[in-house]
Amino acid sequence: MNFPGTIAVMGGGSWATALAKLLLENCESIIWYMRRDDRIADFKRLRRNPAYLSDVIFDIERIEFSSDINEACRNADTLLLVMPSPYFKAHVDKITIDISDKYVASAVKGIVPDGNQLISTYMQRRFGVLPERTLVVSGPCHAEEVALGRQSYLTVGGHDLFMAEKFASCLSGKTLKTITSSDVDGIEYAAVLKNVYSIAAGIVHGLKNGDNFLAMLVSNAIREMERFIYTVYPRPRQICDSVYLGDLLVTSYSRFSRNHNFGSMIGRGYSVKAARMEMEQTAEGYYGTKCIHEINERYDVPMPILDGVFDILYRGINPSKAIAKMSDTFI
Amino acid sequence: MNFPGTIAVMGGGSWATALAKLLLENCESIIWYMRRDDRIADFKRLRRNPAYLSDVIFDIERIEFSSDINEACRNADTLLLVMPSPYFKAHVDKITIDISDKYVASAVKGIVPDGNQLISTYMQRRFGVLPERTLVVSGPCHAEEVALGRQSYLTVGGHDLFMAEKFASCLSGKTLKTITSSDVDGIEYAAVLKNVYSIAAGIVHGLKNGDNFLAMLVSNAIREMERFIYTVYPRPRQICDSVYLGDLLVTSYSRFSRNHNFGSMIGRGYSVKAARMEMEQTAEGYYGTKCIHEINERYDVPMPILDGVFDILYRGINPSKAIAKMSDTFI
Repeated sequence: MNFPGTIAVMGGGSWATALAKLLLENCESIIWYMRRDDRIADFKRLRRNPAYLSDVIFDIERIEFSSDINEACRNADTLLLVMPSPYFKAHVDKITIDISDKYVASAVKGIVPDGNQLISTYMQRRFGVLPERTLVVSGPCHAEEVALGRQSYLTVGGHDLFMAEKFASCLSGKTLKTITSSDVDGIEYAAVLKNVYSIAAGIVHGLKNGDNFLAMLVSNAIREMERFIYTVYPRPRQICDSVYLGDLLVTSYSRFSRNHNFGSMIGRGYSVKAARMEMEQTAEGYYGTKCIHEINERYDVPMPILDGVFDILYRGINPSKAIAKMSDTFI
Repeated sequence: MNFPGTIAVMGGGSWATALAKLLLENCESIIWYMRRDDRIADFKRLRRNPAYLSDVIFDIERIEFSSDINEACRNADTLLLVMPSPYFKAHVDKITIDISDKYVASAVKGIVPDGNQLISTYMQRRFGVLPERTLVVSGPCHAEEVALGRQSYLTVGGHDLFMAEKFASCLSGKTLKTITSSDVDGIEYAAVLKNVYSIAAGIVHGLKNGDNFLAMLVSNAIREMERFIYTVYPRPRQICDSVYLGDLLVTSYSRFSRNHNFGSMIGRGYSVKAARMEMEQTAEGYYGTKCIHEINERYDVPMPILDGVFDILYRGINPSKAIAKMSDTFI
C-alpha cells in the first residue's frame, strides 16, 4: 500500500490553508484543489492564499494546483477533505472517476445535510471508499493559531491506528503535536456537536448571562455530548480527551468562532434570519443542529441543550425562554 | 436534631457576603462573625458590607454581628465557614468552647496548610465535629455574580444527602439553584486543585499562548484532577459535573480570578515574590500547590500540570520551560 502517498488538499479556506502549510513541512509536494481558477492564479502570483491566512508564504513550486476535482483526485493517493460541510456535497458530487481505492481523511468537522451522514459514511456509501481507509482530523485547533506558529494539537482518528499514526506524522511539526485515536465516528459527531454548543454559548453570552452560567452550560454540554455519542456509537471513550472536551472549550470560549458569533447575535436580539444574512457564510452549527435533532428522533437521547438551540433556530422560540428551560435541567 | 437551626456565617469577605445574602432570603435571622469591630460598626451604619460587594443592602435587624468567635459559635447550631484558607487556622483555632455537637458547612475552598488537611477533616480532628455533620459548599460561582442576581449554581455536599438537601434549601432562590452530592472529600480536593490549574491557565495566558493551548491545558487538567481525587478518595464520580469541571472552567477562563491574575503576572515575567507582593492577598492556589504536592508524595499520581506549577512557584524554574515540559504530556 502506498499510504499516504501523494496527498491532495481538497478546499481553499483557512483550515485547508493551515493544513497545507503543515503538510508541506513534511511532504515533498502536494496537490491542492480549489474551486476558483482566478484564486489559483492569484495564489501562484502572490505565493500565498489571497483570501485566507494571507500572511503565510508558500513554496508554490511544490504545489500542483487544480480547479478540476477529478484531475486532483486522479493524481492523488490520499484525499484530505477540508471544505465547509454545507458545501461538501456540491463539491464531492462532482467526482465522477473511481476513487474507491483512495485513502480519504476528513477535516470537515460537519455532517452531510439531507441524509444526515457523517463525512466518512458518505464517502463509503457514495464512492465505495473502504472504512479502513478513512481517517478523520480534528482537535482544538484554530487555523489562525496554526498559521502564527502557536503550539497546537490535532487528533487523527482511524480504524487502523497504524495508518492514523502515519498520517499524523505528515502533519506533526515543531509547533503542531498530534494524538491518535481509533474513535472515528465519535470524533466526527463531537465535531458537529461542539458547533451546536458553541451557538448555545454565544446565545448565553448575547443574553448577558455570566461566567457561572457559561461554565454550567459547558459542563452540561460535555455530558450531553457523551450521552449522545455513546448511544449512537457505543464504545469506551474518555470524553475529557482534548478531541472532545478541548475542542468544545475552544469553540465555546473563543470570540473568534463563527458559531459563537452567530449565537451571540441571536442572544442580542437579532432574528435568526437577520443573523444569517449578517454573516458572510452561515455558521456550520446552524445545519448541525438540525441534523443531530433529526438523528436523535431515532435514539431519543435526552439533549436539553441541543433541543433548546433547535427551538430557537427552527421554531422561533424566544431565546431567553429556551435558555431558561434548558437551564432547569442543569446539574 | 435542630438542623440547620441558627446559622453563623464565619468570615467577612465577598464570598461570605454573598452567602449571607442568600441565607437571609430563606432564614429569619443569621449570626455573622467578622474579625474587626470597626467593620461591623460600619456595616451597621451603612447597612452594607463596607469592604465587599458594597452594593448589596442588608436587612441588618436580622443579623446578629459578633467579633467574638466563641460567642458566635455558642449561639449557633450550624457554622458556615467562609474564610480564606491561608487564614483559616488563625481564625478557628481561637475557638475554645466545645463545638463537637455543631453542624459545620465549609465554603472555604482550600486546604489547611502545615498538616495538609481538608477543612472537614481538620474540623473533625481538632474539634470533634462528627463527619456526618460536616457539609461542603462549592460550585462554579462568583460572589460578584451572585450579588448581581445572575443565575448561578452551587453544590452542597454531605455524607448525609438529606442534610445536604436541607442546607441547600437555605441557599436556594430565584437566581441561585442548588445541586446536592455525597462526595464531600472529592469536592474539597477539586476546589483546591482548580485554583492550582487556574494559576497554570494564568501563566499560559501571560506567556501569550493561544486558545488552542489553553483548551489543551484545561482538558488535561480535568483528567489530572480526576486521577488524583480517584486515587486519594476512590469512589464513582462524574468529573464533568459542574462542581468539578464547571468550577475549573470558571476559574481557568475568568479574568476576575485572583489565581489566574497571579499566574498571568508570572507568565508576563514577574518573579513569584514580586507577583505575591503586587497582590493584596496571596492567591490561594499558591498554598494549594504546595499542599497537594506534599500529599502526592505519598500517592505518586502522575500530575504533570501540578508539578509544573510547583516547579515554577517553589523551585524557580523558568515558566516557559516548565510549561513546555508539561505540554509534552498533553493528550
